[in-house]
Amino acid sequence: MRLSIERNALLKALGHVQNVVERRNTIPILSNVLMSAEDGVLSLVATDLDIEVSESTEADVSAPGQVTAPAHTLYDIARKLPDGSQVVLQINSDDRLDVDAGRSHFTLPLLPSGDFPKMTADGFTHEFSILAKDLSRLIDKTKFAISTEETRYYLNGIYVHGHDGKLRAVATDGHRLALAESPAPAGAEDMPGVIIPRKTVAEIRRLIDGVDGDVHVSVSEAKIRFKTGHAIMTSKLIDGTFPDYERVIPKGNTKELTIDNKVFASAVDRVATISAEKSRSVKMSLSEHNLSLTVNNPESGNANEDLPVDYADEPLEIGFNAKYLLDVAGQIEGRDATFFLESPASPALVKDSEDEHALFVLMPLRV
Amino acid sequence: MRLSIERNALLKALGHVQNVVERRNTIPILSNVLMSAEDGVLSLVATDLDIEVSESTEADVSAPGQVTAPAHTLYDIARKLPDGSQVVLQINSDDRLDVDAGRSHFTLPLLPSGDFPKMTADGFTHEFSILAKDLSRLIDKTKFAISTEETRYYLNGIYVHGHDGKLRAVATDGHRLALAESPAPAGAEDMPGVIIPRKTVAEIRRLIDGVDGDVHVSVSEAKIRFKTGHAIMTSKLIDGTFPDYERVIPKGNTKELTIDNKVFASAVDRVATISAEKSRSVKMSLSEHNLSLTVNNPESGNANEDLPVDYADEPLEIGFNAKYLLDVAGQIEGRDATFFLESPASPALVKDSEDEHALFVLMPLRV
Repeated sequence: MRLSIERNALLKALGHVQNVVERRNTIPILSNVLMSAEDGVLSLVATDLDIEVSESTEADVSAPGQVTAPAHTLYDIARKLPDGSQVVLQINSDDRLDVDAGRSHFTLPLLPSGDFPKMTADGFTHEFSILAKDLSRLIDKTKFAISTEETRYYLNGIYVHGHDGKLRAVATDGHRLALAESPAPAGAEDMPGVIIPRKTVAEIRRLIDGVDGDVHVSVSEAKIRFKTGHAIMTSKLIDGTFPDYERVIPKGNTKELTIDNKVFASAVDRVATISAEKSRSVKMSLSEHNLSLTVNNPESGNANEDLPVDYADEPLEIGFNAKYLLDVAGQIEGRDATFFLESPASPALVKDSEDEHALFVLMPLRV
Repeated sequence: MRLSIERNALLKALGHVQNVVERRNTIPILSNVLMSAEDGVLSLVATDLDIEVSESTEADVSAPGQVTAPAHTLYDIARKLPDGSQVVLQINSDDRLDVDAGRSHFTLPLLPSGDFPKMTADGFTHEFSILAKDLSRLIDKTKFAISTEETRYYLNGIYVHGHDGKLRAVATDGHRLALAESPAPAGAEDMPGVIIPRKTVAEIRRLIDGVDGDVHVSVSEAKIRFKTGHAIMTSKLIDGTFPDYERVIPKGNTKELTIDNKVFASAVDRVATISAEKSRSVKMSLSEHNLSLTVNNPESGNANEDLPVDYADEPLEIGFNAKYLLDVAGQIEGRDATFFLESPASPALVKDSEDEHALFVLMPLRV
């Protein structure tokens, strides 16, 4: 293998694939990136056995070939080379990889490309294209609610499925739930539910950040694949059953509270200053046109803030985790947030005044 | 106690003192800030028993008094209050502190001001004033070399003393040494050597960051005091003997290497990509007008970069820790760095081409 490539092109392609490579690996070849050079194209593949990312980029290939080399080292080298330099990659007579750019010369150990684990491409049953910004929105509005409890592995991801002509994303950790949907692209209307793991969610979000066009998505029973530009990411899905989340979403909450979201978030943040680190409980006391936020902490004191709100129902006291309130407030883009409440023990439904395609559910805390 | 103060003034004053307060304290009152209100002035004092910081600021005091309240909580409240709000602080009938600003009300637990530990003011024997920017420079050029080995406690700070009409700062960890000096201000010429602890160095550097005028310094055998604006910081000194560092500074090194500092730093950073994390050793091979930087790592490969340099002596090979080279390069402000070398086993002297009042010593590594 011998090729010449512009440093920025190499950096960009390595940047897309190297992140999936874990820092510590018991299987040495998983630290490597598979490089294949042929017909004017350099293809890169990296994997952690659950996610595989590949990317191809133009290169001046003078001898085709395939090798695997340390992914992070190669990425660091590309990162530190001066902007605009030309990089020559070639296998030398010692079966190692020479990396030459200007006055810099590196020699890296190789592992045989034949040992590199390839993820099998399943028979994908559903395929569709979605605007990168729509996919980003589905992820951003829900990912904060993904559970980190490993025992509840079926909650360690975002559940995505076709629902009533929409593509719907749901995440929950049992304490809160986030749901966002977008019009289902052609091919996604009857997509069966899949649970996309947390790491995959983070990787695909990174990959499509700032991307202006479409992402092509293929789904099978066990895998999901994303294609954008020259990058392809394939990931295993979580093999589990997502709970019947619809039952958790309150349907009959009648007490409606509308509040300026930014004013609310700042006030919650201020009164939470007093919260103990663990149980960050904030009490919301509602009366006509008034919301009183209170934190009582035997050790560190009390905090209280009254806010004018749009509320005309009977008085209600209900407590929530301050961090969960702030997480939801952070995803509301309209001026107002609307809370649908029922009783101190019933879950609250929260909606964005300017986005009817997202909703949030918060379990109350006893206060 | 009752007073009213503008939020920004409170935030700035608390910002100066709260940083010295440790997050976890076995003595509860050390988590608190001492507040004294009298004659239109609010004074704040915080301490960790080794360092005491005080700051005073104008306030509208309607009832004088003195209390201690949780420093971090009060700072967080001030930080989260809207810019420009007026804050009222007063002791309520339950002997707690009411903090009121607009619609926000907080109540914080107090501890009696009489229990707050005051640092005794020793008989200071030497006093001088130094420009804040000169003091910052003495700190910045040396603090990276402070030892973190607790057993060598006498190296856990910057050694400052009067020397030959200069005020001199020195730090070393046994592997490298950094020295910087400035013209001795009146009163500092014959200042005895004092070792200023690492935390004090960081705190004083933070306190004078961006300060335009003078810092007034008082020194006794056991303490040092800095005054700038309305802030006063008093710190214990390290009770130990700083080694005779002059013996470590090579006097007779004859092999002179002059190199563009930025070009050198980038090249060292690039070849160090290959270094193992622990022994980040870079070999410098000098021949006429050429410096070859090499890293050989059995596991992760080799790196080499040749640089044109100003060197006319006989060939020499010498190894250094890459991080230490980069630390020194980071403190060189002139275009060129000059290395004075002797043999592969002798320490190197490094100077800034445009600053004759700083020098660095690096112990070589075997390569």
